[in-house]
Amino acid sequence: MEKLLVFGHKNPDTDSIASSIAMAYLQNKLGENVEPRRLGNISKETEYALNHFKIGAPELLTSVSEDDCVILVDHNEAPQSADNIEKAHIRMVVDHHTMNFKTSEPLYYHAEPVGCTCTIIYKLFEENNVVIPSDVAGLMLSAIISDTLLFKSPTCTDLDINVAEKLSKISNTDINSYGLEMLKAGTDLSSFSEKELLNLDSKLFDLGDKIKTKISQVNTADINDVMSRKAKLEEVISNEISEMDLGLNIFLITDIINSNSQIIALGSSTDLVEKAFSVKLENNTAFLPGVVSRKKQVIPVLTAAIN
Amino acid sequence: MEKLLVFGHKNPDTDSIASSIAMAYLQNKLGENVEPRRLGNISKETEYALNHFKIGAPELLTSVSEDDCVILVDHNEAPQSADNIEKAHIRMVVDHHTMNFKTSEPLYYHAEPVGCTCTIIYKLFEENNVVIPSDVAGLMLSAIISDTLLFKSPTCTDLDINVAEKLSKISNTDINSYGLEMLKAGTDLSSFSEKELLNLDSKLFDLGDKIKTKISQVNTADINDVMSRKAKLEEVISNEISEMDLGLNIFLITDIINSNSQIIALGSSTDLVEKAFSVKLENNTAFLPGVVSRKKQVIPVLTAAIN
Repeated sequence: MEKLLVFGHKNPDTDSIASSIAMAYLQNKLGENVEPRRLGNISKETEYALNHFKIGAPELLTSVSEDDCVILVDHNEAPQSADNIEKAHIRMVVDHHTMNFKTSEPLYYHAEPVGCTCTIIYKLFEENNVVIPSDVAGLMLSAIISDTLLFKSPTCTDLDINVAEKLSKISNTDINSYGLEMLKAGTDLSSFSEKELLNLDSKLFDLGDKIKTKISQVNTADINDVMSRKAKLEEVISNEISEMDLGLNIFLITDIINSNSQIIALGSSTDLVEKAFSVKLENNTAFLPGVVSRKKQVIPVLTAAIN
Repeated sequence: MEKLLVFGHKNPDTDSIASSIAMAYLQNKLGENVEPRRLGNISKETEYALNHFKIGAPELLTSVSEDDCVILVDHNEAPQSADNIEKAHIRMVVDHHTMNFKTSEPLYYHAEPVGCTCTIIYKLFEENNVVIPSDVAGLMLSAIISDTLLFKSPTCTDLDINVAEKLSKISNTDINSYGLEMLKAGTDLSSFSEKELLNLDSKLFDLGDKIKTKISQVNTADINDVMSRKAKLEEVISNEISEMDLGLNIFLITDIINSNSQIIALGSSTDLVEKAFSVKLENNTAFLPGVVSRKKQVIPVLTAAIN
């Protein structure tokens, strides 16, 4: 039987790992032969969740070839996927992001504007009458908590909350106490170099098909703690700009307690950032009150600013 | 409440009309405010189906604006959609075609590699526990019969057959006798001019993002009947090439009784057609045994030939 690989985006977050594992479990129950993979290192937050529910991390994968049949979860755009993704056969996509997707063959594509891919995968379990095991349910719940910052992100929908409550029952997990511990595990940034901080959760985009843009994000309980490393961060940001030929390199430092972000932006197109958020960058930085979601509060406004 | 418009592709076929009407019905039952539209004239086949089930045709629509919120069914690519579609707010897509789609905001997107959009919409009715009225069920059945050529097209899946059988019960319709009558109604081409024949069911593509391509298709019970008009057809095909700046203009004459097609191809890139189908065009034409599906047997091989 044809083997399928399922994976989330590069620099995987908890949703990318959890949705790969959950989707592989579901598809195998439906008679497919599917294995989960990860396109990068496991974050501290994800590690906390995997350990808590005693699930092993998927094997690492970097590139695919024309021999591979794959399922994409939690992403759809080629720059965020495995290298050579345009050569592979994409059989299914389950995602909750903006779309920039092209294929020459019809496929299964299910996207919904919800906070977390695992919320959609929960619906697929229900639709196919497949029971979710307790450990997989716990991991899916972790993904929803992570993507919605415990339901505080503007990306969070009623459906996410609803599904999280069901998963909390299946996995016998207290959402708030477990959720806070998990998020806090992810904000321990002390052991990371500046270069690592800028690649814990980063995504590449072609803004308006023109400007190669990198947007990285870290969650913290204390913005000042990260900003004390600003000089070194800027050095790495500048290096990345020349190495990767970026027009814009944005670092978003998100305070998950108070739901604000500090932004550091460098590159030849920083005027777009000022236009998008109606702010003036001073020493390459600005405070963005209420901004926590790259997907909902950063990418759309940057896209609108360029158009 | 925000009003939504739902429509299928330009040069609408029975599926584009039926899925617009069915989707509007479903979404209204779910509390939305949705009206169906059509992006072109009703075909004779669709007219037969609408008359049979006593349903009125949707209102004509040509272009949309930044004030419109829309649902796309049976298509996703901008050239096949309403003019200015890139300015409108696309809230949902339900489709079964290859994808070339981009948005700056997350949305609901549900595609499956099945023969007919109405097959997917049937699943959405089930998922939401909405009862399908007999007349809407009959129209949805007509769409499946049309898109799968009474289950004989290679695009037809078990799910299409399954859903068609359920819709046949709901609408109290004999699939074979009704289906043949409906398909035959669509093959009466005598009243159409050559220009009309070339635009009854035509789609525009950018092959490999490079070659502007038009592929038109007619269903017939007698290929010779259409080929007797070859000289005049070629004249119109050539005119379209200069008017629309096409690299390739393909006319597919499909014998729905014996499941073959005759192709007429003109333009500067006809070598792609010869390469794709391993045929030699003689006097701009070739016979393609077993080819009936533009989506499954023409577009993918042309795309492979260019890559």
